[in-house]
This record gives sequence, C-alpha cells and structure tokens, in this order.
Amino acid sequence: MRRTFAGTVAVCVALAFPVGGQDAAQAARAWRQAHERQIVADYLAFLRLPNLAKDSGHLRQSADAIMKAMAARGLNPRLLTVPHAPPVVYGELVAPNPTHTYVLYAHYDGQPVDSAQWATPPFEPVVRAGRLDKGAEIVALPSSGPIDPDWRIYGRSASDDKAPIVTIFTALDALKAAHMVPSATIKFVFEGEEEAGSPHLPEILKANRDLLRADLWVIRDGPEYGGRQTITFGARGFQGLGITVYGPTRELHSGHYGNWAPNPALMLAQLLASMKNADGRVLVAHFYDDVVPLTAGETRALAELPNNDEALKMDLGLARTEGSGASLSALITEPSLNIRGLASGHVGDAATNVVPSTATASIDLRLVKGLTHDRQAERIIDHIRAQGYFVTSAEPTPEERQAHPRIARVVVEPGGYDAVRTPLDLPAVRPIIAALSAVRTPLALQPTSGGSVPLSLIERELQTRTVLVPTANPDNNQHSANENLRIGHLWNAIETDAALLMTP
Amino acid sequence: MRRTFAGTVAVCVALAFPVGGQDAAQAARAWRQAHERQIVADYLAFLRLPNLAKDSGHLRQSADAIMKAMAARGLNPRLLTVPHAPPVVYGELVAPNPTHTYVLYAHYDGQPVDSAQWATPPFEPVVRAGRLDKGAEIVALPSSGPIDPDWRIYGRSASDDKAPIVTIFTALDALKAAHMVPSATIKFVFEGEEEAGSPHLPEILKANRDLLRADLWVIRDGPEYGGRQTITFGARGFQGLGITVYGPTRELHSGHYGNWAPNPALMLAQLLASMKNADGRVLVAHFYDDVVPLTAGETRALAELPNNDEALKMDLGLARTEGSGASLSALITEPSLNIRGLASGHVGDAATNVVPSTATASIDLRLVKGLTHDRQAERIIDHIRAQGYFVTSAEPTPEERQAHPRIARVVVEPGGYDAVRTPLDLPAVRPIIAALSAVRTPLALQPTSGGSVPLSLIERELQTRTVLVPTANPDNNQHSANENLRIGHLWNAIETDAALLMTP
Repeated sequence: MRRTFAGTVAVCVALAFPVGGQDAAQAARAWRQAHERQIVADYLAFLRLPNLAKDSGHLRQSADAIMKAMAARGLNPRLLTVPHAPPVVYGELVAPNPTHTYVLYAHYDGQPVDSAQWATPPFEPVVRAGRLDKGAEIVALPSSGPIDPDWRIYGRSASDDKAPIVTIFTALDALKAAHMVPSATIKFVFEGEEEAGSPHLPEILKANRDLLRADLWVIRDGPEYGGRQTITFGARGFQGLGITVYGPTRELHSGHYGNWAPNPALMLAQLLASMKNADGRVLVAHFYDDVVPLTAGETRALAELPNNDEALKMDLGLARTEGSGASLSALITEPSLNIRGLASGHVGDAATNVVPSTATASIDLRLVKGLTHDRQAERIIDHIRAQGYFVTSAEPTPEERQAHPRIARVVVEPGGYDAVRTPLDLPAVRPIIAALSAVRTPLALQPTSGGSVPLSLIERELQTRTVLVPTANPDNNQHSANENLRIGHLWNAIETDAALLMTP
Repeated sequence: MRRTFAGTVAVCVALAFPVGGQDAAQAARAWRQAHERQIVADYLAFLRLPNLAKDSGHLRQSADAIMKAMAARGLNPRLLTVPHAPPVVYGELVAPNPTHTYVLYAHYDGQPVDSAQWATPPFEPVVRAGRLDKGAEIVALPSSGPIDPDWRIYGRSASDDKAPIVTIFTALDALKAAHMVPSATIKFVFEGEEEAGSPHLPEILKANRDLLRADLWVIRDGPEYGGRQTITFGARGFQGLGITVYGPTRELHSGHYGNWAPNPALMLAQLLASMKNADGRVLVAHFYDDVVPLTAGETRALAELPNNDEALKMDLGLARTEGSGASLSALITEPSLNIRGLASGHVGDAATNVVPSTATASIDLRLVKGLTHDRQAERIIDHIRAQGYFVTSAEPTPEERQAHPRIARVVVEPGGYDAVRTPLDLPAVRPIIAALSAVRTPLALQPTSGGSVPLSLIERELQTRTVLVPTANPDNNQHSANENLRIGHLWNAIETDAALLMTP
C-alpha cells in the first residue's frame, strides 16, 4: 500500500491546506523534469501494444497494462465488461468528503492502420527530432539532460488517445511525491472501443450507473486549439456510411463493353458530386434543418478564439478552403459530410482496362446540436433515392438488378451518436476553468470540438454533463499514417492532468 | 528434323493438290479429338508461367517456352529484342513460291492481377465444369473420352492472349499429320508487351522491316462476336490516363478539419462527373470531333451482326445500358472514356475518419478512326483546365500548392496508339474470308473491335494492313479476375488456325 493514494490522502487531509491548479502544475513539472527519460520510455512501451479497435486480443493486453498501472497506484481497478466488446478499464480515487466527483475519460484503442503508408511500423513507436514531413530523423533519447520538447513520438495512438492515460498516472505520481491529495473524488474511465464508434459503451454505462455517477465527465481527447490550454464544451455527433453502386455483375473489358455497360465509378462520381457544391456546401435536402444556432455567449467565445487559419493553410499546402472563407472554428459548428474514401477497380500501375463491377465510397457525417444521427443518415438515403437509385442495405439480388437501372447499397454503420454542446456557464465546469487557468493562460474556450466523441451516450445514460480537455498538437496526424505527439505537448498534458486531479 | 515442317513441306508441294479451309479444319478437328487431354494439359502448363506485362524475368520464361515449341516444329525461331523490353518471339514457315505472306500475331503477356479477387491463384490454372459465377466446381480432366466443351480453363491469359499461341502449334501438328502444307508463307509474331501498350513494338518493327514484311497481319486476339466465326476489320485506338487531385499535404482528421480543408475525393468526383452525362455521353469539348463516319458497307455490316444485347444485359445484371439504347456493336464504333479505377483514403472496415490527401482516377480512352491518341489526351487535359485546375505532370511543388486552389496531376501513359479500320473489301483479306467461311458460317464481319490492339503501329511501321480473327468466348472475364476460356472455344481456335495456315 506504500505507493497508493489511499495512504497519502489521510496525510494531506490532516494537513488541510488548499492546493490549487498552479501548485499542482508546478509539482507535475518538477516531477517530469526529474523523470523525462522514464516517462517517454514507459509511453513507448505502452504504444508498442497493438490496439486496433477490432482486435480484441491485443486490446486486452492494453487493458491489462492499464489495470496493472492502476493497481500500482491503489486506484482499485476493475474491468467493466459486456460480451463481445473490449473492456472499459475503471479506477477510482475516492475522497472522504468530496466537493465534486469527476470522471476523467480517455480511450486506449486506435484507428485502423495502413502500414504501407507509415514511415515506420505503427506499433513500433520511434522518437524523431521533429516532424517527419520536415525530414526529421529517428533519434535516441539523450542519456542525460532534458529532452527537446520539439521532438516527437511517432506511433499509432501516440496522440489519439493513449497519452492522457499515461499522463494521468504521471500526474498522480507527481502529486503523491508532493504530498498533494485531491479533494474531489476522481474516477477513471478508459474505453477500448471509441474508434469503432463506442457500440457497447451505452450498455456498459447502463450496467454501472451508480459506479460511474459524477458531476462532470472530463474527456481527455483531441488536439488543443491554437497553442492554448483548451476546454471544449461539446463535440459533434457522428454517423458513418458506406455507399456502393453497381455496374455489371463482373468486371468487363473496357474496350468491348465500355460506354455500353454502365460504369459504377462514373455513377458514384455523379452521385457524390450531387451531394456538395464546389464550395463544400452540402446540397442534400434538409441537411442543415433543425440545427440549434449558437448562443450569444458561444458566438462571443468563437470570436475570441485565435485564428491560425492562414498558417494552417500554408502548412497544409492549401491555396483555398471550403465554406466561402469562413474560419475553421466557425465551420466546425456546422454539420458536415466528408468523403473518407473511394474504391473502384484499380489505379496507377495496377490499373486494368475494365469497366469495374462496383464502386464504393465511405462517408462520415458530423452532426451538431439539434440533429440526430439516424435522421441525418436518412436524409442522405433520401437524396440517393432522389437521384433515381433503388436503395438497399444488402447485396442486390438478381431480381433487383433486373428491376432497377440504378442500385445503391447503403450501409449505415452501427455506433452513430448525436452532438453535445455544454453551456459555457455550467456551474459544474467553473472549478475546471479555474484550475486550468492556473496552468496556462489565456484558455481557449471552444463551443464545440470538430471531432466526435460519444458524449451524448454518456449524458443520456448517466444524466451527467461533459466537457473535453484536449492535449495533442494539432499537426498530430490523428487517424492517419505517422500519427505523432510532440513531446512538449506530453509535458503539458502532465501538468493539465495534475491541475484536473486537484480541481476542488 | 523429323518433327519439323521443313520436312513435310517438300512432300506436300510434291503432291501439289490444293487444300482449302474446310479440309484444314477437318484435319484439325480429327487431330484435336485424338489429343484433347494433351492439348489442355500443355495449355495449363503454359498458363502456369507468370506473364505480367511489367515482369520481364517471368516474361522471358514464356518467350523461351515459345522458342522451344517453335524449334520443335522447325519454325526457325528467333527473339527480336530491344533493350528494356520483353522480346518478340518470331518464327516462320517459308513457302517456296508463296501466293501470299501472312503474319499471325498474338501476345504472351497478360494484364495485371489482383490475386485477392481471384477464386484460385491467377497463375495456377484450373479447369471448372462450367462458369465459376454459376457455381461450377474445379474438375479433373477425364482419363479417357472427350472433354466437355462447356468446361472452362481459369487463369490469367487463358483467353487473352495465350490461347492462339498454343492453338497455332496444335494446328501445325494437325496439318503435318494430315500432310497438308501451306502455300503461303506464314510468319509468327508473338509479342510480350501488348498489355502495357506495346511501347517498344514500333522500335522492334522498325529494326526488322524486311523480316516482318507481309500482305496482311492477322491478329489473333479478343472475343468472337455473337457465337460466330468473326473477322474484325480494325480496332479502336487507346490512351491511358491517370488523374490525381490534391487536398491537404497530409491526411487530416475529418472532424477537426472536414468542410474546411478541401476534400480531394469530392473534387475528383465533381471533376469526373463533369466529363460525362448520366447517359454516358462524353461532355469533354471536341471529344467527338474528327471522327470518320462509317462507310455504307460498314453500316450494312454492322446491321447484319447478330444483336445479343438483351441476353447480355440479363447475364450481366444490367437493367439499363448507356448510349440512349444504341446497340453494343454500334457504340463501339464511337470514341469512349472509361473510368478504370478510383482510389482515395479507405473504405469499408478500413475506413478512417480523415480528409484524404489525394484522390486518383485511372481512365482509358478508346479512339476510332480519325482521332489521334495524343490529341484526345490533350482534350481531356483542356477539359480539366476548364474546370479551374492547374494541370501538372509531376507531384505539385509547395509553390504550386500555394499558387493554385485546384491542382490535378495528369499522367498520359506511354504506349497510346490510334485506331485502324481496314476496308471490308480489301483484296488481301478476301482469301482469309474464303478460308474461314469454310470453317463456320455465317461469319461475323465486324467493322471494328471494341478493344484496342496496336494495329496502327504495325501498319505505320511496316506499310501493311491488318485484320483481327478473335477466338475467345465473350464472357471470358478478359482483363479481370477469374479470366477464363471455354474449352469449346479452344477447340474452335485450333480449326480456325488450321484454316488460316492453309489460306492460299
């Protein structure tokens, strides 16, 4: 029990002096400065555990590693399980007379990987002396002295979302060393299925309602805004869709049959082109209906956010953006339709001279407050029907092929969820704002994240509220090849977590 | 020398009685009926040699096998080579006083393969008791008795285009056994680079002008028309194009950046959609300019072709076709633009929630008489420019990315060529028509093939003329996975080749 918080709680409550975000952050910094090599090495070990959202065996290894780390810190860990789903790893730090109860949430699963696109294997993390795309080489950690904060860790989930798991543990170690004890009860919820759309999270929450009760869930995920300590008051909802259109039952020689047999790649191009105009405005009927407009306070908060759009355009090689010149932070308060991928036949050296048999697009819809994910999917389906398509959810039968000149198979992916926008002035958030203001100012108060996390599921099942406190560098290649975390951002996250843990 | 034609030539010229197409076909049939197992087994062995158009090592194995078969038949084989290209395998059967000189052409290379789409590995050919897509199982050849002509051989190049190479050898064996000797000089040209667009063929032809001189080149390639013995009086020209459009320099999280960062998959969809209307009519300016209309004779020949479109639509699961209801045989007399493939990001289970960085389409243009492949490619490029794109042939530089809101990289593939339409009443073709009429009637006289073979290169370099005598079953999955040849069509090809060899 020597290393557990349970022991130190008694001591600090006995001392009975208040400690704030600034003290916590300073304690975290001192601890980190004394342990940089070990912190990075431990993190690299954690990143070496494969964590694909659909690979339950490997996910269990990550869950076990987290259990072990929690047990070492006396966090009373347990696995919250339902059949056929990776477990939620739960831990807790119970204050005797808590002022508040907070949940700190992160997820230990990662996005799919296309290893061919990675400079180094996604589950063999490396440290580079800067950004890969700026030519930074792989480096060894220095044997002594500080690590350059501009170095980066490359590997799947480096930024999304394993970092908050290790930084919370580091922050706990730092606070313990400084004899600081939270006055709030802190619960830890580390999910293993977020990148698959959290299909089993509602069931797990429902089965553990009392255990997971809290005044506020603090979601530790996503990139920070404009180099500032960020608090994000909600997230967009999400719905994934697959659309496949059909040509001939088998690929045909493009010379002998082209321009007679309908080409599904062309049909798909025409169908997708009908969904958005050249400026990115969605043309699907009713797509923007029911959107709840921003409040005056939210509009003001949006205006106060730093605008780094021009620097970002330069960095990303973009001479234009969509949305008639509106800012990125304003555009993410609107619903969106994004093409994640296209596939039909083959391209480049692998191209064959055929009329392909099918063409598939993968789409993600982002939702804002007022929309529901199933209704938004239905609007897309209605649009496809309006273009003359017979829509089915299965492979078309021979009879359907004979009956319908245009057939689209639309797969509405499981695990969609709605948007959440937490009021900027919600009382439960005030202590968090105060604690984080003591770490770095000015804060960036974002009305919503552009990303999606299943806040609505959490709020619905537990009748609680949610905010996000993101950590990653914005150029982290989240969800892509060569995902990375800037080491300076890892350091910041430790201080942020320390302040969160010490929020009254 | 016992097995060579050189020996038998002397004998038969001494006998000096004329033999026609019918006698030749009958001799071929008798020979085939006595050797069915061996013919199929030899063909399977030939198909086991990998023959990807860009795999020079394996292609050389095929060339060596052909050399060996030619040498065994006394065809005086040699390799016609230029650096960095698979060789043309040449052989000849020189008549002492030839009435005509014909070249029989086929190609031993094959289209690229996507092994994942094949039911069995593409270079491990199998025999099935019918069509795979109708559920036919793999079968062993019968130990005795005839092979069912409806059985099929599955493997890369089974139909395109290794069959004519083995059937010519079988026909030679049959004629030798029947003591029949051609009165024309026959030259054999087997190319190894046709599926890559024959980029080195002009150079090889130029270097061997005298050797390859002939009254007519007979191209043994393609599917027969409507179940008839077919002579095709030309082929469409060809130009392959790759089009890549650009979004952000790296994939971006679709929630945080979607609907702000331009999505290249959407841009590509819009660009491709602008190229054709819903009925498949190409909207690119001047695309149909300069097309030489069909002659009255060609129009009549077209009308006489059997129309199997309805049966084909049923077979292919198509409830509609492009081209306002025009027949397939009429549509292939027009230029076409076909999308061979699309690729951007990922789809299905591999989809990640990103704005892709690029989107690529692969296109093939088919040309008819009057068009040139480089000018037709230029029309596509002009169209892309007219949609607001900066067009480059290389990866865009950072400066170009900053300067141009829309960038397309267009790769005009090497090896394009123009269309050929040989007059239906060309004197050099009359003996061929007569010989093949004796095999099967009625003939199908096609003004042009829908497919493309480099006839224009041959005609230009050698000042000769060309026709095609195709052989494969139309449902052979040419260029696709599960390419196959119906065994009855293999049998027919042997008779066709025998008649061609005995054409005066």
